Parts: sequence; C-alpha cells; structure tokens
Amino acid sequence: MVGGGPGAFIGAVHRMAAELDGQMELVAGAFSSSQEKSRQAGEELFLDQDRVYGSWQEMLEKEAARTEGRIDFVSIVTPNFLHHPVAKAALEAGFHVVCDKPMTMTVEESEDLCRTVSRTGRVFALTHNYTGYPMVKQARELVRSGELGTLRKVVVEYPQGWLSELLEATGQKQAAWRSDPQKAGASSALGDIGTHCENLVHYITGLEMEEMMADLGTVVDGRALEDDASVLIHYKGGARGILYCSQVSQGEENALTIRVYGSKAGLEWKQEFPTWLWVRSQDAPERIFKNGNGYAAAAAAGATRLPAGHPEGFIEAFANIYREAGRAMRAVDAGQVPEHPDFPTVQDGARGVHFIHTAIASSTKRAWVDASYTPPA
Amino acid sequence: MVGGGPGAFIGAVHRMAAELDGQMELVAGAFSSSQEKSRQAGEELFLDQDRVYGSWQEMLEKEAARTEGRIDFVSIVTPNFLHHPVAKAALEAGFHVVCDKPMTMTVEESEDLCRTVSRTGRVFALTHNYTGYPMVKQARELVRSGELGTLRKVVVEYPQGWLSELLEATGQKQAAWRSDPQKAGASSALGDIGTHCENLVHYITGLEMEEMMADLGTVVDGRALEDDASVLIHYKGGARGILYCSQVSQGEENALTIRVYGSKAGLEWKQEFPTWLWVRSQDAPERIFKNGNGYAAAAAAGATRLPAGHPEGFIEAFANIYREAGRAMRAVDAGQVPEHPDFPTVQDGARGVHFIHTAIASSTKRAWVDASYTPPA
Amino acid sequence: MVGGGPGAFIGAVHRMAAELDGQMELVAGAFSSSQEKSRQAGEELFLDQDRVYGSWQEMLEKEAARTEGRIDFVSIVTPNFLHHPVAKAALEAGFHVVCDKPMTMTVEESEDLCRTVSRTGRVFALTHNYTGYPMVKQARELVRSGELGTLRKVVVEYPQGWLSELLEATGQKQAAWRSDPQKAGASSALGDIGTHCENLVHYITGLEMEEMMADLGTVVDGRALEDDASVLIHYKGGARGILYCSQVSQGEENALTIRVYGSKAGLEWKQEFPTWLWVRSQDAPERIFKNGNGYAAAAAAGATRLPAGHPEGFIEAFANIYREAGRAMRAVDAGQVPEHPDFPTVQDGARGVHFIHTAIASSTKRAWVDASYTPPA
Amino acid sequence: MVGGGPGAFIGAVHRMAAELDGQMELVAGAFSSSQEKSRQAGEELFLDQDRVYGSWQEMLEKEAARTEGRIDFVSIVTPNFLHHPVAKAALEAGFHVVCDKPMTMTVEESEDLCRTVSRTGRVFALTHNYTGYPMVKQARELVRSGELGTLRKVVVEYPQGWLSELLEATGQKQAAWRSDPQKAGASSALGDIGTHCENLVHYITGLEMEEMMADLGTVVDGRALEDDASVLIHYKGGARGILYCSQVSQGEENALTIRVYGSKAGLEWKQEFPTWLWVRSQDAPERIFKNGNGYAAAAAAGATRLPAGHPEGFIEAFANIYREAGRAMRAVDAGQVPEHPDFPTVQDGARGVHFIHTAIASSTKRAWVDASYTPPA
Repeated sequence: MVGGGPGAFIGAVHRMAAELDGQMELVAGAFSSSQEKSRQAGEELFLDQDRVYGSWQEMLEKEAARTEGRIDFVSIVTPNFLHHPVAKAALEAGFHVVCDKPMTMTVEESEDLCRTVSRTGRVFALTHNYTGYPMVKQARELVRSGELGTLRKVVVEYPQGWLSELLEATGQKQAAWRSDPQKAGASSALGDIGTHCENLVHYITGLEMEEMMADLGTVVDGRALEDDASVLIHYKGGARGILYCSQVSQGEENALTIRVYGSKAGLEWKQEFPTWLWVRSQDAPERIFKNGNGYAAAAAAGATRLPAGHPEGFIEAFANIYREAGRAMRAVDAGQVPEHPDFPTVQDGARGVHFIHTAIASSTKRAWVDASYTPPA
Repeated sequence: MVGGGPGAFIGAVHRMAAELDGQMELVAGAFSSSQEKSRQAGEELFLDQDRVYGSWQEMLEKEAARTEGRIDFVSIVTPNFLHHPVAKAALEAGFHVVCDKPMTMTVEESEDLCRTVSRTGRVFALTHNYTGYPMVKQARELVRSGELGTLRKVVVEYPQGWLSELLEATGQKQAAWRSDPQKAGASSALGDIGTHCENLVHYITGLEMEEMMADLGTVVDGRALEDDASVLIHYKGGARGILYCSQVSQGEENALTIRVYGSKAGLEWKQEFPTWLWVRSQDAPERIFKNGNGYAAAAAAGATRLPAGHPEGFIEAFANIYREAGRAMRAVDAGQVPEHPDFPTVQDGARGVHFIHTAIASSTKRAWVDASYTPPA
Repeated sequence: MVGGGPGAFIGAVHRMAAELDGQMELVAGAFSSSQEKSRQAGEELFLDQDRVYGSWQEMLEKEAARTEGRIDFVSIVTPNFLHHPVAKAALEAGFHVVCDKPMTMTVEESEDLCRTVSRTGRVFALTHNYTGYPMVKQARELVRSGELGTLRKVVVEYPQGWLSELLEATGQKQAAWRSDPQKAGASSALGDIGTHCENLVHYITGLEMEEMMADLGTVVDGRALEDDASVLIHYKGGARGILYCSQVSQGEENALTIRVYGSKAGLEWKQEFPTWLWVRSQDAPERIFKNGNGYAAAAAAGATRLPAGHPEGFIEAFANIYREAGRAMRAVDAGQVPEHPDFPTVQDGARGVHFIHTAIASSTKRAWVDASYTPPA
Repeated sequence: MVGGGPGAFIGAVHRMAAELDGQMELVAGAFSSSQEKSRQAGEELFLDQDRVYGSWQEMLEKEAARTEGRIDFVSIVTPNFLHHPVAKAALEAGFHVVCDKPMTMTVEESEDLCRTVSRTGRVFALTHNYTGYPMVKQARELVRSGELGTLRKVVVEYPQGWLSELLEATGQKQAAWRSDPQKAGASSALGDIGTHCENLVHYITGLEMEEMMADLGTVVDGRALEDDASVLIHYKGGARGILYCSQVSQGEENALTIRVYGSKAGLEWKQEFPTWLWVRSQDAPERIFKNGNGYAAAAAAGATRLPAGHPEGFIEAFANIYREAGRAMRAVDAGQVPEHPDFPTVQDGARGVHFIHTAIASSTKRAWVDASYTPPA
C-alpha cells in the first residue's frame, strides 16, 4: 500500500476491503511521506518493520528485489497527484495495481497510464467502488437484458454537504487536500464525486457521451476549486442526461443516486440504501429487487456474501472490486486471460479524467462542447 | 365554470376543491363547446338547466345580466388556448376568476391579463395547486425565517411517465390537447408541469431567475411538442438551480419533488408524500415536519383540515387555493384589501409563461439566455 | 346530521365526505344538544334555519312529517352513547342511516340494531372509513384471488400518541368524551381505534375469530378507561393474529398498519401512506401497488378519483363509504337489491362491539376466551 | 474456531467480523466433525494444517499445550447443542470464548456456564450481534439519558419468511439443524431469532420481565419445532411489551424491528435500515439519527468506521462485538478489569435461554407465567 497513513480515511477502507474475504493480506507499505509516520502505521498494522518503507520508490525497489514472498500488487490510496507516478512505476516494476480515483491529474497522464497497462500486461483496477454493489450489478443486467427498452434519460446525482463550511481552513486533512489544486488537480467536486456519477452511468448503461453543457460553481467563499457542478449531457444514440454533484448540499451525507429511464421501464438505485433497486413501469406494480434473493442476476448474486435482509454496505462493495481484481491477477499470473472481469479499468479511469476536463472547459466557455472520447486501448 | 365537460379530468377536481369547505357552490357553467355535452354535464351536476350554457360568451352575458344570485366568480378549466379570452372577458364583465395553468399561450397575453386584473380590480387566482399543500407552506416559512440560511442550490424535478407512448395517437383526450400546439401552446412538458416547478421554487424561496440554459427534447417519435426538458438556472443573488420535467420517465407517476439547500440547512418536499417535509443539516438529526402538528407554522396549520396522521392530498391542497381565493373575493367585494392573500396571482402566471418561452429560446439557441423578468404590476 | 356541532372533529369530515362527489347535500341537522349551538352550526353551514333542530327527536319527527324534500338519510356523528337510540329511531322513522363507530355501547344494543335494520329494510352503513381506501380494496382482492395462498398470520396495529398526557383533564373535547365511560362506553382505545383494526382484518381477509387473549392497560394515571391494548388471536382455520392499539405511543400519529401473511405471499398496508400497498414473497421482487393505475382491481379502481401519483387521503376514503352507502340507498329506494354493496354493515358494527367486550373479558380473566361470534342477520 | 465448515453460513460471518479491524487473526480450527471437511476448510482459509484439527477436544488440548503462539480465544459457531460442552471446556482450558446464540440447550447448562465463566475469570461474549449496530447503541443512550421519559411500551418483532416451506425436508443445511430438536434444542423460532428480540429489548431499555403470555405455533406441516411465536410481556415497573418472531412470514427477509415508547418520546430501529434511528414525540418534528454524525453518542460513534452516508451493515455490527470482546480479553490478559465492556455476556445468554423455556411453558399452559429471572453472577 502506498498512502493511507495516520489521519487518512480511505486507506483503512482499502485494507478492510482487500482483506475481507481472506484472499489478500497486507504485507508491506509506504504509508506516508514521513518515514516516522509510515513506521508508526506499519506497527499499528502488525507489519514486519523491514517491509514498512519511507517512500514508495524504496518500496517498489526493495519489493521487486525480493526473491520470495514479494508483494503481488500495489494499492495506491494517496492524494490524486501521486496516482500517476506511483501507478506507472509499479506497473513497470511488474506489479499489478489497484488505484483510487480520479485516476490522474491530466488526460495526458491518463492516456500514458492506459498505454503503460497495455505495454506491461499488468492488471489495473480503479476503485470506483460503487459499481461493486450487488444491486448496481443487477441494474446493469436489467439494462442489458432489455427490460428497460431503449434508454431515454439518465439522472445521476451525488449531493454531499460536508464542505458546506470552509472546512479546509480548519486543517481537516480530508478537506485540505481535496480542495488543493496541487494535490487534487483541477477539480474538487467533479473529481471526488462527479467521476463516480460518470462511471456509474457508464457501468450500468454503457452509454457514451456525445456532448455536454456544464455549470460549475464555487459556493463557499475562499475555496480554490469548484464545490458544485451540474452537467447536461447528450449521449450517443439520443438519450439525455442530467448529472450533478455538490459538496455544499447541507444535510446530505453521501447521497449518490441514479435513475435510468427507458422506453419500457425505469430504475432507481440509492447508495444510502444500497441493497434495494427500484424498477418502475406504467403498466405494472413497482418492483423492488433486494440483495441476496434467488431471483438475482448472477453478477449480483456473486457480489453478495450474506442472505437476504442482512445489510451489506460500503466496505463489502469495495471488497468486491478487490475480489474481482484479485481474480484477474491470479489469472494473469497463471498466464490466462481473465474471464468476465468485473472491475473498473484504466480506460474507465481515463474516461473519468476526460470527463472532468471537458466539464471544466464547457463551464468556462458557457457552451455545449464535444464530449465524445475513446481512451487508448 | 368554463370547461370541464365529459372526459375532462381537471374540471372535476376544481369542482371538488371549490366545494370542499362548504363555502362555494357551482351554480352555472359552459362545460363544453358542444351545447349538448354542456347540457349533459349540467344535468349530472344537478344544475338548473337555464344556467347551463352553450358557450362561455353566453354564460358571461347572461350571468352578468342577472340582478340576483349571479355568479361571484368564473373557474376556467379549458385547454390553454381559451384561458386568455375567457379570463379577460370574465374580468371585464366584473367577475373574479380562478384559472388553470399555464395562464396563457403567449407572454403578450399574460401581460395583457396582468393589466386587465389591475384595471378591473378583480381577484385572479391561478391554480398552481401544489402551493396549496401545508408542508409547502411550512417550507416557505422555514426559508423566510432564516432556518436555511443563505440559499445556495435548488433542485426541482417533475418526472411523469404517462406519455411514454404516443398516447395522443390513440385519441386519449388528456394527451391529445396537451400535445397539440393549437390548444396547448408552444410547450407540452414545460407548460403542463414545468411551470409548476418554476412556481414552486418561487413560492418557497422567493428567488428570481437571472439566466438559464435549457435543453428540450421530444423523445417520442411523432410528437409535436417537447416531452422532456432540463434547465440550469442562475438565480439573482448567486443561488444555482436545476429544474427538470419529463412526461416520458417510465414508471413515474406525478413525482414533483423540490430540494432547497442553504448555508445552514436543506429541505426536501415530495408531492407523492405531501404531508411530510424533510429538513437536514450537517450538525443535527434530520427532521421531518408533518401535517397537523402543533409546531406547524401558521400558514401550514391554516391549510390543514385534519389531525396529524390523517392524510390530506391533492384535492385538499387544491381546495386551499380556492379557499384563499374566496377569502380574497369576499374582502374585495366588501371593499377591503385582502390580508395576506396566499394563492398564485396573475403575476405568477405571467412569470410562468415567460419561463416557458425563455426556456424554448435557450434550447433553440443552445445557449445561456437572460431569464430575468418582472411582470406588469 | 345528528351531532357535529362546534368543537367536533368528525362531523366536518362526514360533511366533506358526503358531499365530495356532488351526490349528497346536507339539508338538515341537530348538531348539538344545545339549541343555540345547533343553530349556530346550521348558520355556518348555510342551512335553512327551519331545518336546524334543537334535538334529534325533533329532527326525526319534523323531517318524517315533510311531504316534499325530506331528508333521505341521517348521519350520526355523536359520542358513542347516542348511536343506538338515534339510529334505531331514525330507522324506524323510515330513514337510512350512516353511523360512526363503535356502533353501540353494548352487545345487546348492537343486536337490537341488527334486528331493527332487518325489520325496517333500511340501509345502515357504519363509517369504518379505512375500508374505503382503494389499496385496502386491492388488498382484499389479492386475498380473494388466492395470491396470498392460505392465510397464516395477521398483524394489525394502531398506535397513536395523542393521549400520552391526561389530555381529558384539560377540557379538550375529543379527549374528554372518549375517555368518559358514560359517553364512550366500556372502552377507549379498543372502541375508538381497536375496532378499526378488527374491522380491517375482517374486511381484507374474511377471517373469523375463534379465541383471543387480551391485555388491556391504563397507562396514564387518572384515566378512566384503557389507553393501550394488545390481543393475541386464533382465527378459525388456523391463522394466528396480533392486534394492538394504543393511544399513548408517543410520537405516533395515526399509524394504522396491517400485515397479512399467507402461504404464498404477504402484504402490508399503512394508513399514513394509504395509496401504496406492498406485496412480498420469497421468490420475486417486492411489489408496490399504487392508486390509480391500470392494473388495479375493479373495486380499487372504482374507489379512486384521480390519476396515479395524485394523493388521495382520509376524506376521499371516507367519501367512498358514503358513495357506496348512497348507491345502496338509491337501489333500495327504487325497490331493488343493491349489487355488490361495499360498505361496513350493521353486522360489522355488531362484530366490533362484541370484540370490545370479549377483549375486556379476556383481559379481566387474564385468560384465553372464546371469541367466536355470529351477529344476527 | 469450532464449527463453520463447508455449507455453514455463520462461520464465515464470524471470520470476517473477527478480522475486520486487523486486530484478530484466525490461526486454528476444528471446522467440522469430519476430519476431511475440517482439513479442507483449513486449506481454503490458508491455515497451517497442523493447526487444523479433527475435533474440538483435540484442538483445545493441543493449543493449550503450545508454549508459544497459542490461540487467545475460541469462537464457537456450531449448532446449539455443542455450545455448552465446547464453551465449558474452552474456558476451563484457559481460553476466552466467543459463542453464537442461543447459548445453550437448557437453563441448567446456561447457569453452569455462568458459574464456569465466573470461576475461570475468562471473557465470554455471546454474539447477539444486533447490539453491535451503532444506532442500537444510540437508542440505548437516548433511553439512559432520559429523552424517552418513563418507558411504557415496547414492540419488538422479527419476522422472516425463509421457512415458509418445509425447507428442512430438502436437505438445506441451515434449515435442517435449526428445526431438529436434537441440534437446535426445544425451539426453532424463539431460539434462532426470538432471543435476539429479547436481548435487544434488554440492551436498549434495561427492562426486566415480570410475567409473560406466549402463543407458539408450528405453521408448516411436518415441522418438529415452532416457527411462529407471539409473546405479551409485563416488565417490572409497569411497561408492557409485545414480542413476536416468525419464520413463516412470506416475503420478510430479516426484518428485526424495535419500537420503544416512553412518556416523553418514542424510538424505532429497523435492522434492514440499520444506520438510521427514528425518534418521535408529540410536540416536535420526527428526528432521524444517522450513523457517523457528530451528534452521535460516544458508544455509537465508537462503533462506526466510516463517515456519514457510507452504509455499514451486518458484518460491521458483528465485528463490533468481536472488537469489544477483544478489548476485554486484552484487559483481562493484562490483569485488568475491562472498562465499560460493551458486548453480550454469559448472563445475557442465560437470560435468553430462560426466556425460551418460559415462553414454551406459557404457551403450553395457555396462561400468564412468571418470567422474572436473575442469572447467576
């Protein structure tokens, strides 16, 4: 693991998620740019101190040099600006990579990473963790199977309220780096949560953007990056979309919600009640699909660990990304091609970074802009 | 009553709403452009046949000529194109008017009606009925009292699914006129439901639009008018808004929902569960205000007929518009100025018509357009 | 109307409900035992003062003596102790009757009323208004059609919180008579709300009780009657039931809820969200039936006035009882037998009164008691 | 770990829960009474094969004999009949114990275990896992702090539908042992889920039972034990309760719900939406407490791993039991007395077993029976 030292939030989630199924074990890390903090984190995690490193460069070098028991993959849970250099180096050192999102600071970096993955043949998984929820997978299956008919409209939203005040001025670590352009990149809201929206739509519907019209705002005085963004989207094939995210929606917690409407039916999924999926049409009672039932699609069933009515949440969904990535790593390490891999890829990451920068451009121009994009294979 | 004959839906709602409190009684009508259908409707309504008229012109003339027991006001429940001529004539004949929305076909007609109301001194109420719900009034009071702080973001949506098919081709009366430009005007979705969104935002928040960017779509092949519309809005003072309405959102019934976020708290109201109002902030448990409780604001309490837990719905909210309009009529007829009138006015109607046409212009230009507007007093 | 004068709550509901569809009109009344209060009520209701009476006896006598325009039926909305004498006299005077619940103070009175109805051939409708909700009718149809399979368990509950304090000591009129044994009878909670539970189960399921074990409590010190009751029930045929009602459940408003489980599916209906009906089974997604859709059973569709998504509530459900009773009255007055009458009958009322007294007996004995009962035809 | 081999469900939950926080690690096990199955389970869990045992007796003996790295505690996840012998032997061998519920087959065994715990001084934690949810802890704090006032009524229910058919006849492993008196004990529904209800009430409210009236039923033909139970309860101090559990409530998944009403407020918690807690009173808007917010009570905050809006579910709550038990073990191993231990104890287990047998006795006698009980300290 790179990053995830004291004060971090997402590092602990990655650790719990990776280890949940007893198939992965954290054995080495460069948890902080401070040698001392890294050491301390390693101690709390019961690691051998000789595998707790003061820098990610040292970690990659020494682990690559081990002849036995070397790490299989690297989890990158740092602020955004480090994703690209660490991931690229890890891939080139022969390691698989699991990386947090947004994938990189720039489109150029993203495309470079696409090519690096292709060149090295390593597995690269991006933790767009919301696609790990079973009912998101069920939603995708309903779209694929034609139950919704031709897609017409997508509404995806991700309101949060935690940045309603200028929290970064108080030294709160999560707020500080996310609103710092040097560490987060050109965007705060779009990068941190808007890309989850973009990815979720793509995962469930497969729709590709054609053009977009974005309106970004910095609501809280003194903030360096946008904390609110609304985007109108035209998808290829004629569907329309509304995507919005906000970090200043007072009282909202983590209210990612998607609705997809087709010519035959519509569906709704809400991250805060993730085990349910609502499906509606004009001519039949509304239906609620729920985790853990016999009628689930295979992908949803396979992403569920407990019987119906036993809530599985954020960590479990996150663990599904790791589990799928691990399955692919084992296949690749065995010289095989993974069957039906089901995790966000480096191309998904590139799509997200392109989305961020296109939205910024549209908002700056106050105009519709071309949003079509095909990442490098 | 003008309109509301056989096959109409909203006419019956107006009648139930007007009479609910035992303060108004339907005594005359021109229910259809067909003399026979009008007569039949009058009979079913137990009216004196000599007050059932073959045309609205005849009704206005004969009722105005009565020396005793003449009607106090006219309810206009026709398709949109008749709103302006009937309302203008009724006002000029000395009658108060209750009129369905959207108010007129064009901005010019709207402004003409504003001036007519001003000139005649009659009461004019527009049935933006959703503002009649007690919890909508509670929401307005929360905004006014400062509980939300400075307003930052408004999200208002009104998805329906009933026009997911080309229903107008089947002869269904509601669908037929609403999608006919001659009868409905330049808009279907915006006129029928989008104006409710616009009005609801204005009622609760008092915000005035500054500019907008609209994206209208005609999703169902063969339809003459738009059936889906998304609008990004900048309000004066800096708040941002998203407004969308759709008649092709499969499985949605009448899902008008508004969320308003301020610097201190946010609120949510959903028409399909109209007796509840959700209020959220970062530092306290979410609160749900409910109809009929002692903590209600005066305007909400006054709009409630039943104790807490006894659901009041669409008709009751509609009746609140009539009750408030009736209160104003009695005051005006007594030569007084109504105190705190609480119903949508002719200016609200003009604002709605201006909104429709501005959105169409923006969508056609694919650009942000000026949306500021002050209707004639 | 008898009762329903100043300070009453349910009288106004009866008036709104009766008149909602424009098929009934209030023309006479004895609204209070005080001549002056009755007169005042009549004036507020725009009645001819010569049809506003100082006593119900006077009303029945004078109305019966009219040769033209006499009332068709009497609505009895008094405290419980007057139901029997007024209803009996009205029936014997040749009037149909709509009466509030619980029907009478004693089983003897109930059975006397059954025989009176039978003897006079008049229509008698009891306002167990909750059976007027469309989704309650849908629930009955699902049971009847076999969708639930063999019934196994019923859980019906009716918690309220409004008597959490000794409200009757403050002079609040609703609380005062309901907790006064002279006016309310032997029960408060069971009579006022428990009988709605009993009736709702019978309406939806048709189940007949075999034995019961009740536990009544008077929670608030100083109260004369029980304010909390729990009843275990064995129905004929083997189904089990739990019925409870409470007036001291802090924070509950009017939370009547019923769940019925069969061998194939279960259903749930909640009065506070009355337009939805939840149906669940082990092998399919949960379904939600909603008011106003094309898939509704005929009885549900016929009880709906508005399109889907337009909430109909308490008054509308109440109006359905009146509408159905009115339909039966017209049939009887025309010498016909009403087809498929759908309103609570005098036998339903007798069943409710028997239920109250059986529960009191069981609680007093602290034992299971025979609860089987067949009211006189 | 003892038990939890192939085909088991709860064993995997225990493993994920124990290891979630990186503080515990599974190192040894006797996973099945079949040597081969145990070995296979150990292999899948990456255990050293010399610590995978063919019997629990062998495990206890060999682990106790290790001079280094011996296990710290034993998790018992077998069918009920093995809980007592394994737990007793483990305690006497010097190990702490985490044991699934119901604790034992008989009251005698329970009390023997109480005394064994007392005598050995070992930590004993029972996995009444639902008390591990943060909002359950919040509920307890609200009761303790007096926000509810004097407690008046408790309604706790646990309907499931998974045994609606005679599933045990199909060989389904979970159903088979739970309905086998030799393995499950005298009860199915009460033992498996009813004891969770009993424990949850005790945890949140601290109420002690005085007397009860139970009604047990075996709904599905051919089943050996009860699959439905309803219990009326009188608590010491005057509060009343309704407790019911059912395994034949078609369409219910794992719908454990508790409502507690006091003189000042009432609360509701639903296991299927575990991150929310509803609090209601007559004079203020309903409040919803949610996981991960700053206003949480310390015990709730300490039981939460993620920020607000990031759902934590069943495994996380289960892990909280393990974490708390682990904290106590470390204290005891260090010769200290654990501070504020917050996990279900051997006395809680004894209370549950007594509850089962008292309910059976009441149902058999069809009478109220004394339910007061004080387990051995």
